[in-house]
Amino acid sequence: MNLILVEPSNVDADGTVRLSAAQGEHLRTVLNVAPGAVVRVGVIDGGVGIGTVTSVSDAGVELRCTIVPAVPARPRVDLLLAVPRPKVTRRLWPHVAALGVGRVILTNAWKVEGDYFGCHALREEVYRPLLIEGLQQAKDTRLPTVSIHRRFKVLVEDDLDRLCPGTRRIVAHPGDGTGRGSSVASALAGIGPAERVLAAVGPEGGWNDFELALLEAHGFGRVSLGPRTLATTTACVALLALVHDALRRSGAGG
Amino acid sequence: MNLILVEPSNVDADGTVRLSAAQGEHLRTVLNVAPGAVVRVGVIDGGVGIGTVTSVSDAGVELRCTIVPAVPARPRVDLLLAVPRPKVTRRLWPHVAALGVGRVILTNAWKVEGDYFGCHALREEVYRPLLIEGLQQAKDTRLPTVSIHRRFKVLVEDDLDRLCPGTRRIVAHPGDGTGRGSSVASALAGIGPAERVLAAVGPEGGWNDFELALLEAHGFGRVSLGPRTLATTTACVALLALVHDALRRSGAGG
Repeated sequence: MNLILVEPSNVDADGTVRLSAAQGEHLRTVLNVAPGAVVRVGVIDGGVGIGTVTSVSDAGVELRCTIVPAVPARPRVDLLLAVPRPKVTRRLWPHVAALGVGRVILTNAWKVEGDYFGCHALREEVYRPLLIEGLQQAKDTRLPTVSIHRRFKVLVEDDLDRLCPGTRRIVAHPGDGTGRGSSVASALAGIGPAERVLAAVGPEGGWNDFELALLEAHGFGRVSLGPRTLATTTACVALLALVHDALRRSGAGG
Repeated sequence: MNLILVEPSNVDADGTVRLSAAQGEHLRTVLNVAPGAVVRVGVIDGGVGIGTVTSVSDAGVELRCTIVPAVPARPRVDLLLAVPRPKVTRRLWPHVAALGVGRVILTNAWKVEGDYFGCHALREEVYRPLLIEGLQQAKDTRLPTVSIHRRFKVLVEDDLDRLCPGTRRIVAHPGDGTGRGSSVASALAGIGPAERVLAAVGPEGGWNDFELALLEAHGFGRVSLGPRTLATTTACVALLALVHDALRRSGAGG
């Protein structure tokens, strides 16, 4: 863990951070901190700073922290994702938060099984700690916003402009075996320094023709991740890595 | 599963493929194939073709296959990886095979725990099926070559030239927080159409100074995956995606 993320409510006005036994478990049992230990501390959706452990007990861990109030910039990429299988969804959250996304929009699609929507991995009490795990890895504090949409058409036609205004939109679609298709870099060519990217990844088996046409009609440019068909997790990580790389190389920062 | 991969020994001279109950389990219980079903079949390190199921029973599955003998090209990327934690290693294999690597070279490093070398995930009987899982996802047949090296210095000084001759060498190193560092694309600029890439990923916590200096002295150019510190799996997938993308965009094929 490269950063200990704490809730804003854990931080007193004088910089004292009180963590319960559960919140402080990693500090106690993995990092084996003792009073005097210095750790990097961040506040969820807040600043980053330094904390000195002042007490460790079965009741929890207390730190005295100095937090620089500057909040990190929100990552410039949002992810539109057809709900994966529960096991895949659960494993995906930390990757997504570590790579950096501003917003995760989960949607239905023809090839998404209806019962995926009831799964634990889509409950905030399950995914929030997994997102925090990814942020702690990447030393970020900005918790991605998550929303879940059961009606794909309504989402694309009515909601996306409000959720993600003014974004460059791309959709990854499995190659046709020839490796042809626009690269992420060329799809994002000339992107402005404040412009955001909305990147869409379909279900295992892909978007159907209707879904792909609807996305294209709403401004999503098709990009290829190459001739190999990738599973959802691999595809999401690859796509987010390529988008961030393209943004960095455009000189506009990823 | 996008391709059923079978062992060369499963294929008779007349194209009959006999799968044992265990080998045919996915076909029987997930794909629910019946006689007459047509599936995509590949032979490990061999060609790809079409198989028609001729019988399904508790004893196994039989198919009549037509395999085009052309073997897919070996992916042009090799991965040099400090042995991760066992759980991470186990999950990494399918990603790596799906993205496409010719060779996986696992090595010791200062921050690798010695007992990682004894873990199940480094045993061929464990990792081979996981690599095959990734190949089946990506519709490839070329099984990556795996080797494990307990002495980092010996590997870099004496073995790498033999294992990976004539490769462009890059090493991913966590950013310094500024996002500076060569991009993968610029590190691979001007790569020849037959030249291979050897991409190195360090342990959680990074290579130490000695290791990084040794790699640099042996031709590894440092590349940055951006200012965020990534866990091993995320970093490997991101790096391999960026290398393949750079190779494709160089016009030389990924």
